[in-house]
Amino acid sequence: MTHRRSTPEPTTIGEIGEFGLIDAVVRQLGTGPLVLIGPGDDAAHVATGPEGTLISTDLLIEGRHFRRDWSSAHEIGTKAAACNLSDINAMGGTATALTIGFGAPADLPIEWAVDMARGFEEEAARVGAHVVGGDVTSSETIVIAVTAIGEAARVVRRDGAQPGDLVAVVGRTGLAGAGFAALSRGFRSPKAAVAAHRVPEPPYEAGPEAAAAGATSMTDISDGLLADLGHVAEASAVAIDIDPTAFTPPEAVLTVAEALQIDPLTFVLTGGDDYGLVATFPPSALVPTGWTVVGSVDKGAGVTVAGAAFDGDTGHQHWR
Amino acid sequence: MTHRRSTPEPTTIGEIGEFGLIDAVVRQLGTGPLVLIGPGDDAAHVATGPEGTLISTDLLIEGRHFRRDWSSAHEIGTKAAACNLSDINAMGGTATALTIGFGAPADLPIEWAVDMARGFEEEAARVGAHVVGGDVTSSETIVIAVTAIGEAARVVRRDGAQPGDLVAVVGRTGLAGAGFAALSRGFRSPKAAVAAHRVPEPPYEAGPEAAAAGATSMTDISDGLLADLGHVAEASAVAIDIDPTAFTPPEAVLTVAEALQIDPLTFVLTGGDDYGLVATFPPSALVPTGWTVVGSVDKGAGVTVAGAAFDGDTGHQHWR
Repeated sequence: MTHRRSTPEPTTIGEIGEFGLIDAVVRQLGTGPLVLIGPGDDAAHVATGPEGTLISTDLLIEGRHFRRDWSSAHEIGTKAAACNLSDINAMGGTATALTIGFGAPADLPIEWAVDMARGFEEEAARVGAHVVGGDVTSSETIVIAVTAIGEAARVVRRDGAQPGDLVAVVGRTGLAGAGFAALSRGFRSPKAAVAAHRVPEPPYEAGPEAAAAGATSMTDISDGLLADLGHVAEASAVAIDIDPTAFTPPEAVLTVAEALQIDPLTFVLTGGDDYGLVATFPPSALVPTGWTVVGSVDKGAGVTVAGAAFDGDTGHQHWR
Repeated sequence: MTHRRSTPEPTTIGEIGEFGLIDAVVRQLGTGPLVLIGPGDDAAHVATGPEGTLISTDLLIEGRHFRRDWSSAHEIGTKAAACNLSDINAMGGTATALTIGFGAPADLPIEWAVDMARGFEEEAARVGAHVVGGDVTSSETIVIAVTAIGEAARVVRRDGAQPGDLVAVVGRTGLAGAGFAALSRGFRSPKAAVAAHRVPEPPYEAGPEAAAAGATSMTDISDGLLADLGHVAEASAVAIDIDPTAFTPPEAVLTVAEALQIDPLTFVLTGGDDYGLVATFPPSALVPTGWTVVGSVDKGAGVTVAGAAFDGDTGHQHWR
């Protein structure tokens, strides 16, 4: 038999307060040899090499970038870290440290914030990075602001694609988009697609490998392959053509496509949130293991599929 | 005489869209020799020295950290940059680059976002730093997520204060707090106080100077002098006593204090948002020009004023 305490344990972040929440979150964090000063001071201090610092930031808002009824706190934290780690990967680099700004309403369970932080730190630890600082504040909706810093032995930009280069991809293509389409229509399956929307699996070793192999341009596939390649084509002032027969859509993509009467290629070519990579390689380069050649670079402008414009919406813009 | 166009110029960020907004904001930004890759790629690339990278982040939410009816967009951008640059200053460092995550509703005037970005970049340029990347998204309220990176020849932490050290401050003390009190009660004067709340003037050269002079601990005064010194005392496991007669409150602080029947020392000791610095120096150190010695460090714990606990609220916590 248990007795009620006169002061019950706090269960919401409003009850535990700002400093209590920070303590609870910091307990989820690890550290590593590069972290010279971690959370708790005015700024963190991270050891950096001679190659300069890569830095990328994302702002995630509840209802727009994630939904608490679609994904667990741990999944949301994992994805919040992954999309920033992926940006460093897409430069050919590896992240070393992240910061997290967290805004939430007072009635949020402490457990939610702690699980989110744990997912975030666990994903960061996959590349040897750690959360080194942050900020918490009250907010009507949940806001997660992520910044990652990292390093690359060789930095690969978007603007280096050359006519004659091959285009290759690595990682999932279309699976998260199919999962989003399924969730949007109230389905919770197929599991592989829904799980891919909830938690991306960026190919973190592939970015540095592509850089070492001589990739001339690279970006991650966050808005959809054609949209992201559009940025590469524009920055590099080249034309890119994609061979649609080069893809083997996963079973779960075929299932969703059939159920929704959509061409599976639509998910493969325009689905976002997979956080795979697309890069261009000189014809003389040895494309690293795990990559699939899916197209080619030519003189001109724009992105085509088998020589023609792709018939469909190719990307998301906020406020549009 | 002007004729109406059939397609009027876009005036809101919803009309201009995500990429239009990014273009408009990026046009406000400058660059410098340390910026190897600026906005437009997956991540920015910043040259860094051998001393490692300082990193700090802040999450600012409309209605909690700023109000559009109290401050202009330019002022809000200036302050958003200043509070992060101040964190790097408080480590003894100088910021080199910032990122900005910006969330806003579709009906926000483009001009507001552009003015905010201009204020942000101009403040960054005061220390030679530039905005190198960011993220924009739709959001019901305005959200500004700021991250700064920087470097220090000598990093000063919070945990190095020693018994026998002197305590010294530099920069405004109490002026922004008095301005906040005035604005909160519907006043728009005294101007010096209200302006101080809107736009801090962090003493950006003082952090590196204090580090070079041998400061044993340092922090910026963002939550109020006593609250921020409380973190130093706790991290350093020392007692700190402040001499209230060491301060000369500015005229505007006296004016607000008299109007509101509040002890002016309350603003000086507990007012936030001034972004001055407080540091401890060994008795043998030459305290740099511009600093005022206001107290001393002893064995023990906690922060006292003339040997006694200060009678008043000493700091702000979110959700409390």
